[in-house]
Amino acid sequence: MSTLTIDRTDVAADAALRPRVRDFYDAYYDALDDVRLEEWPDFFTAECLYRVIPRENHERGYMLCTMQAESRGMLQDRVTGLLKTQMYAPRYYRRFPGPLRVTVAADGIRTRHNLLMVQTLIDQQPTVVLCGVCHDRLIEEDGRLRLAERVVVFDSEMIANSLIYPA
Amino acid sequence: MSTLTIDRTDVAADAALRPRVRDFYDAYYDALDDVRLEEWPDFFTAECLYRVIPRENHERGYMLCTMQAESRGMLQDRVTGLLKTQMYAPRYYRRFPGPLRVTVAADGIRTRHNLLMVQTLIDQQPTVVLCGVCHDRLIEEDGRLRLAERVVVFDSEMIANSLIYPA
Amino acid sequence: MSTLTIDRTDVAADAALRPRVRDFYDAYYDALDDVRLEEWPDFFTAECLYRVIPRENHERGYMLCTMQAESRGMLQDRVTGLLKTQMYAPRYYRRFPGPLRVTVAADGIRTRHNLLMVQTLIDQQPTVVLCGVCHDRLIEEDGRLRLAERVVVFDSEMIANSLIYPA
Repeated sequence: MSTLTIDRTDVAADAALRPRVRDFYDAYYDALDDVRLEEWPDFFTAECLYRVIPRENHERGYMLCTMQAESRGMLQDRVTGLLKTQMYAPRYYRRFPGPLRVTVAADGIRTRHNLLMVQTLIDQQPTVVLCGVCHDRLIEEDGRLRLAERVVVFDSEMIANSLIYPA
Repeated sequence: MSTLTIDRTDVAADAALRPRVRDFYDAYYDALDDVRLEEWPDFFTAECLYRVIPRENHERGYMLCTMQAESRGMLQDRVTGLLKTQMYAPRYYRRFPGPLRVTVAADGIRTRHNLLMVQTLIDQQPTVVLCGVCHDRLIEEDGRLRLAERVVVFDSEMIANSLIYPA
Repeated sequence: MSTLTIDRTDVAADAALRPRVRDFYDAYYDALDDVRLEEWPDFFTAECLYRVIPRENHERGYMLCTMQAESRGMLQDRVTGLLKTQMYAPRYYRRFPGPLRVTVAADGIRTRHNLLMVQTLIDQQPTVVLCGVCHDRLIEEDGRLRLAERVVVFDSEMIANSLIYPA
């Protein structure tokens, strides 16, 4: 994996690619913030890896994670489950991604960015429910970008139950 | 409203426009974070809409909101009031806008971005007082951008009293 | 100090410079978030100013601050101390910089950006430990950017003890 900014050629690629990657994440997070969950699986390739994992496990190489899906179909099942059962106390989530780091690797576009996820129970002050970093891999498919891999590493040991919602 | 990235022409417009819009918001938020409130009304057009509204009301189409102003004059009155009366416990606000989405519409430049507003009472830890999304419309006037419309939709039902300060 | 966007020439400079500055901060914050503290001093010039100071003191021109270092050597000492003594309750820090404002001055590249620093004790919910603004000055040295000056102004009166870690 080499960063896009190493030589002149890479800088050019970067200048063309970055706005597309940025637009991809804008659309991804807008869909989740607006609770259009049914759109979520389509941001992934048919075969994919979606993983939400505590930092300690990730850094030690343990695979024990909070959530894992290995195909778009599994993500769709997840959404179906969520849409049927979301009868909790009314609450909203809003995602604040940090600066986006984009590198090009042999197997696709690698991105890294921090993620802050804020929960608002509507009669309370907002609180931070997730603070972590996303290690993603995107590939181009039929002229659009899709996530082949998304690994969300969060800094807590345990995850708030609120994280039944996608990050 | 169409996004700037739909075709080649739009991409070009985007590349020229985005830095100006980004600079506009940098200046807007710097002025508010630095408590230069007297500069705030000048970021708006003479006739304008400034609205701070809870998400539930906004999504149901109710107009009941926390604050509304329909002209730069009303914003100026607001500032005058604030400058006279801000004798609360010493506190600071700092605004963290999320990634900026810019689209061009027939009636101006539409932007969308999340907003996290953090309050610090100087002898306490910082807390999140507002988490929401801004739906804005900018127009060009005498060679500079101004807000013709700014609708701040926040995720809580009630707003912290601290939000007497502009968002 | 003049902003990069004042005239055509400046815009051009901006377009070339901004990605480099952005990459610099991506690398800076990644190193700190990943706790690669031994890399931290190398982001600074041999003679430098690193200061973490409460907003009240900064605005009144008082020099009383929470931490100050005046050379890369002092930063290295700091890191050595930290690496020896970090036997606190397990915790992580993650930094969320706001939009980056870049201007070119006679003495280097001036940047301003807000900074939110989130602490996670691994068995608790994340909390905001620092909310402030960074006033930095970068210079070019041997083809890479380095911090000649970094002043982190935070909104609290007191700083959390956690801020023994670099911001």
